Amino acid sequence: MAQTAEPAAQSREYDVVVLGAGPVGENVADRANALGLSAVIVESELVGGECSYWACMPSKALLRPVAARADARRVPGLPEAAGGPLDARAVFARRDAFTSHWKDDGQVDWLDSAGIDFVRGKGRLAGPKRVTVDGGPELIARHAVAVCTGSSAALPDLPGLATARPWTSREATSAQAVPGRLAVVGGGVVAVEMATAFQALGSRVTMLVRGSSLLARMEPFAGELVAESLAEGGADLRWNTSVEEVRRADPDGPVTLTLGGGERIEADEVLFATGRAPRTDDLGLETVGLEPGSWLEVDDSCLVTAVEGGWLYAVGDVNHRALLTHQGKYQARIAGAAIAARARGTSKLDTGRWGAHAATADTAAVPQVVFTDPEAASAGLTTEEAERAGYRVRSVDVDLGGVAGASLYADGYRGRARMVVDLDREVVLGATFVGPGIGELLHSATVAVAAEVPLSRLWHAVPAYPTISEVWLRLLEAYRG
Amino acid sequence: MAQTAEPAAQSREYDVVVLGAGPVGENVADRANALGLSAVIVESELVGGECSYWACMPSKALLRPVAARADARRVPGLPEAAGGPLDARAVFARRDAFTSHWKDDGQVDWLDSAGIDFVRGKGRLAGPKRVTVDGGPELIARHAVAVCTGSSAALPDLPGLATARPWTSREATSAQAVPGRLAVVGGGVVAVEMATAFQALGSRVTMLVRGSSLLARMEPFAGELVAESLAEGGADLRWNTSVEEVRRADPDGPVTLTLGGGERIEADEVLFATGRAPRTDDLGLETVGLEPGSWLEVDDSCLVTAVEGGWLYAVGDVNHRALLTHQGKYQARIAGAAIAARARGTSKLDTGRWGAHAATADTAAVPQVVFTDPEAASAGLTTEEAERAGYRVRSVDVDLGGVAGASLYADGYRGRARMVVDLDREVVLGATFVGPGIGELLHSATVAVAAEVPLSRLWHAVPAYPTISEVWLRLLEAYRG
Repeated sequence: MAQTAEPAAQSREYDVVVLGAGPVGENVADRANALGLSAVIVESELVGGECSYWACMPSKALLRPVAARADARRVPGLPEAAGGPLDARAVFARRDAFTSHWKDDGQVDWLDSAGIDFVRGKGRLAGPKRVTVDGGPELIARHAVAVCTGSSAALPDLPGLATARPWTSREATSAQAVPGRLAVVGGGVVAVEMATAFQALGSRVTMLVRGSSLLARMEPFAGELVAESLAEGGADLRWNTSVEEVRRADPDGPVTLTLGGGERIEADEVLFATGRAPRTDDLGLETVGLEPGSWLEVDDSCLVTAVEGGWLYAVGDVNHRALLTHQGKYQARIAGAAIAARARGTSKLDTGRWGAHAATADTAAVPQVVFTDPEAASAGLTTEEAERAGYRVRSVDVDLGGVAGASLYADGYRGRARMVVDLDREVVLGATFVGPGIGELLHSATVAVAAEVPLSRLWHAVPAYPTISEVWLRLLEAYRG
Repeated sequence: MAQTAEPAAQSREYDVVVLGAGPVGENVADRANALGLSAVIVESELVGGECSYWACMPSKALLRPVAARADARRVPGLPEAAGGPLDARAVFARRDAFTSHWKDDGQVDWLDSAGIDFVRGKGRLAGPKRVTVDGGPELIARHAVAVCTGSSAALPDLPGLATARPWTSREATSAQAVPGRLAVVGGGVVAVEMATAFQALGSRVTMLVRGSSLLARMEPFAGELVAESLAEGGADLRWNTSVEEVRRADPDGPVTLTLGGGERIEADEVLFATGRAPRTDDLGLETVGLEPGSWLEVDDSCLVTAVEGGWLYAVGDVNHRALLTHQGKYQARIAGAAIAARARGTSKLDTGRWGAHAATADTAAVPQVVFTDPEAASAGLTTEEAERAGYRVRSVDVDLGGVAGASLYADGYRGRARMVVDLDREVVLGATFVGPGIGELLHSATVAVAAEVPLSRLWHAVPAYPTISEVWLRLLEAYRG
């Protein structure tokens, strides 16, 4: 293990060199290592990555108190005093603990304990199987280099943006104060989650949405129910809205957004949640014939298809297959196993559908939970995605409010579920649940979709009464008609 | 539809006669009806059965506020005032609404709308395919009689019991006041759930447990974690304790329990949660050669094995396969389909393992959620059950407190998970989860067990990050070793 800079002239050889020490890079190195290969990780920022410090962990830490209190207020027993904004100081303090106060000592120790070498610095490819590190050693990869550098917030090119000090997901998740007025540009997961969190903490939220819906990649009712709830909580949702200019005239003053129609909106902070860009712009990709700043196309084992020789892998967000921590970790396990198998000279990898060396779930069974109130969760394909993929499908919906377990869970329960069925094989291609308390229910759908369980067998998977999971029985009944 | 008494001399013919209008009887009649058979239900108590009025619904209504408040208090944001006992008046009022104030008009209307005839009165078999109803018509079954009369609380034969007015599950779930001191005899599901509810409502609870553990049918850590939590909440748990005598000397005074060692305990109410007895003692079973008061043994289609002619079914608790509402309803769907198939003269029923006419899940994939705090949930077989059934098994455990989603869910999260694997087929035979917020997670295990999904495929069922469901990844890793 070496954290200190060493003479650049020195070069070291490893079986696997990993660029990026987020959860994805850690998992690639860990799997390769566990399978007998030596591995080194290069990272210029914090070990643990976006997820640990500026995404999943802090956002969920901000959101869990929102859901817990909302759920408690939907049944009797709490005193009236449990209304009003959440105690922001306490919520931020808990969030700070979950991000280890943005220090990575614990993660560095974990690498050490796992037997993975670590070099802190900016790593770049310098030709096939060669990585240089600013102020550090040159690293030679015997078998594989894995690019696991993830993605960063994509900011639009707007007049005044530089002066406005806009928030991205990083500033929102690491905020130490609650803005009185928060403008959120975007309508995807980051936008709705941060709108939910800051609204509960006391911000007046305005959402500026380019299209006419939230969570556009999920079934339409997901965005509708989340929008309804945000609006009831006081948020001002503006649809089909473009932002043309952003200025903060006084560095200590508010920010002014000019909208497409000329209207101006003032806010104390503005969050741009307008998509992601690959962190591949300064990785030396040009030395191996790839375009800097591009997403890296890979096969199902995460091998970059445009590079010959079977040594360059791109795992996690950078390959643009499924920009989610858990899918990146899944790819990492598979890529790690594939690297080890190829290093052993295994003639035949198990790269068939659902094989040990194929990230099949990326296209067939991706789960996602959006921690809004209500929660929105989906696994597999939406109706539209299934149809676009050429399946003959039927989708059935169930009103979750009519399920006994849901009505017991919360007074006035509002929610909806949808199951997308492949009519030819009678298996579930996808499922979506929206409502309070459905986050953990999702995994039942993920298992059903990934295992391609026939509906005839799902009838034998009896939901415990009275849980919200009984929606599965209602979905099967609705399908039977 | 006939609710009023009619001359006994009159007799009516139906394809199916159902005794008992709980959820199980309702589902048998509904399935048979939907498949083209005429059906009548006979019920002397409330339509909707034990579950609706004195079990699942009211107990969950009492318990949900306990869990919701406990969960909210485990994250920051709630004011200090959210401590202390729950507002019992409000909790009881909500419970009363969920039991429709112990009136069954809504359920009777549902039978009507479903096209199922209903006779209110005490029904009894009077020989093969004949049912008499006190003060009502004689009912002739063309194809089947289904006994769906369920079970009732079994009280021990103790000196003084008659004077003591003990609570059973019925009195506990329908209580209108919180006893200052509640003694609970038993350590099973009813005992721990009612101890949890009344402790949160303000009772001082003493549990008198015959053995040395709670929830003895689950993996041992379930009872251990629930016991730990009850004790921390102030409950006095007495192990290896027998109750020898119960007296309430003054009808308006407290009840005194004499324990095996001679010690006396005083309480305001005593709940006996000491098992169930079949409600078959006054059903005319002797007219078809069966013993009144016995559990009725059935095959996988719920046909009573000791009676010839293929017309008598016993569905739900009475058959003693799995005393749970959801399993009874599952059996009811299968029995209803089997009755219809046999009525059509179908030569071959699908009674193979996991067939449409076989309640296979009763022995292989029963789910149960115990709504204590922490929740305890299991699906399929425990380690001991799997070994006893002759499987070659390996069980792996994971500390839920170490799962990111769990630690975010609640500060100081305590919980545990176990997966029982069939070493020969590498499929999951059972799983147990204990911890806050795991109730809906269970269905993922139920699907995995019922569908016999190989572990190699479960690796592709990626849990969304950061949810508690990520425990599945930890379990798979623990198994891989």
